[in-house]
Amino acid sequence: MANHFGDRLCEAVKSKNTPLVVGLDPVYNRLPEAIRSHREMNDEYDIGAAVDAIFEFCTKTLKIVGPLVPAVKINIAFFEKYLWEGVETFYSIISEADELGIEVIGDVKRGDIGHTAKIYAAAHLQNPEFAGMEDIITPDAVTVNGFAGSDTILPFADTANEQGKGIFVWVRASNPTAGVIQDFAAADGKKLYEKLADVVGEIADQPKRIGAAGFSNVGMVVGGTTADETSLLRQRFDKIWFLVPGYGSQGATAADCMRFCNSNGLGALINASRSIIYAYEKPQYKDLFGDNWEKCIEQAAIDAKMELARAR
Amino acid sequence: MANHFGDRLCEAVKSKNTPLVVGLDPVYNRLPEAIRSHREMNDEYDIGAAVDAIFEFCTKTLKIVGPLVPAVKINIAFFEKYLWEGVETFYSIISEADELGIEVIGDVKRGDIGHTAKIYAAAHLQNPEFAGMEDIITPDAVTVNGFAGSDTILPFADTANEQGKGIFVWVRASNPTAGVIQDFAAADGKKLYEKLADVVGEIADQPKRIGAAGFSNVGMVVGGTTADETSLLRQRFDKIWFLVPGYGSQGATAADCMRFCNSNGLGALINASRSIIYAYEKPQYKDLFGDNWEKCIEQAAIDAKMELARAR
Repeated sequence: MANHFGDRLCEAVKSKNTPLVVGLDPVYNRLPEAIRSHREMNDEYDIGAAVDAIFEFCTKTLKIVGPLVPAVKINIAFFEKYLWEGVETFYSIISEADELGIEVIGDVKRGDIGHTAKIYAAAHLQNPEFAGMEDIITPDAVTVNGFAGSDTILPFADTANEQGKGIFVWVRASNPTAGVIQDFAAADGKKLYEKLADVVGEIADQPKRIGAAGFSNVGMVVGGTTADETSLLRQRFDKIWFLVPGYGSQGATAADCMRFCNSNGLGALINASRSIIYAYEKPQYKDLFGDNWEKCIEQAAIDAKMELARAR
Repeated sequence: MANHFGDRLCEAVKSKNTPLVVGLDPVYNRLPEAIRSHREMNDEYDIGAAVDAIFEFCTKTLKIVGPLVPAVKINIAFFEKYLWEGVETFYSIISEADELGIEVIGDVKRGDIGHTAKIYAAAHLQNPEFAGMEDIITPDAVTVNGFAGSDTILPFADTANEQGKGIFVWVRASNPTAGVIQDFAAADGKKLYEKLADVVGEIADQPKRIGAAGFSNVGMVVGGTTADETSLLRQRFDKIWFLVPGYGSQGATAADCMRFCNSNGLGALINASRSIIYAYEKPQYKDLFGDNWEKCIEQAAIDAKMELARAR
């Protein structure tokens, strides 16, 4: 496997023939009945039972989507809810994904001033060197909140470089009120998120970060729901991998998202979380597959791939 | 104890007669030799030994500074470095601080779109309801990254309200490059951090968030190193508690920081981390107290309190 994150993404997207990424945001109460009911203690207040159920759901989902998609995005918030036991489960799931050969993006949105950013970067990108923890690995890439500027971003980018990993800096969010901050405009019409994109782009462009395929290991998170505002970013930043949330449950269309891809289909990862992992809640899949929640997830991932392919 | 976070801060600052907050950013290699050497395995690669040493250092430090200051700020990055074992230690330290009657600010800088923000808020502000975990509590307040606007801030603010807790939204950072993003200016000269302060101020002003003492449970983090840019914030937002980092190691003077306090000494918490918890590294304290690192920390906290009092 390539030693550069950007190169690995190129290989993975080509081999799976899709930019689709599946996001894991597991909420105990939405897990399939079958997983919740075969536990001895079927109770979300039993932390051990809850994290076991989440682990079972996520690893089964990984086995389903692993052959179909280049990467998964795991949102750590949904694990932090279960305190240290949830964090341990988060790492167990990363190991499972790694064994399946899928790229893993840790959606951690960490960011702080340089001194602390360096510690966060070590925590989330450096594989731990503790005795007895040789099996534990950190994600292939993490999301970073760049609100405090390059002092925050550089420690993550540099740690990613050292480790053959990557980062995606959150440049433009997909939620309704993000524009109040992120579209804040200067006198010349330039918006804050464009300024932040410049900061990220300059770091991403440093020669040491560029892989053989021409992409940087420093990417950007840009919401698919803001396609009108952001379609120019693809042209301006030709070495960037975009991680595009918002497809599916948040209402971005396949076409909105696909404009982040180059003509060869590379350069963007389109994430769908809830619309795939909870497909078994939807009548369209339930009617087809009944209680077979795994088939529902598989079909939803196939359908999303096809929809994205048609929108190219 | 008052049930409103803003009221509790007023009581705590009055009773300790200082706005000084001590920040815990424990780095294993900087811990006192005495703590590192009496372990069986004196090795930062032994995760159990490392977190035990960090726990011992932090709890001893809490006992020293507890009688002197109204609150401590615990930076979770330094615990995440030790994976789930570090996170468990983070919670153990919160419980110790709570028993000493000090307010605890979890410096977690979490932020994401609404759906995820709600989960982060539950994870970090709601006391866990898991069986067998009745002793585990979350911090009295957490820091929040409001880059994605009110959608991110409101779930934290609402959870804080339900739990009698508080939040501090990161409005202006203390690091050198923060200004590139945070001072980004509109045509009328308004800066991005001022726009974000407006968003936070509007949420903070909602009547349900205001306590008996007239302060909101929604505050702001504003760096002491940017005093010129930010001294107007105190006047504009009269119900806000400011959490002011940058005093000490980052170079903000006592006077820079004290301008966030009202004339009665309330309304701001001034944080010093490394300059206090690593006081035993400094010749000025080492010469006085030798290897007694606890006396060094105590004296540094007393000196910082006096310096802030003189700057009023």
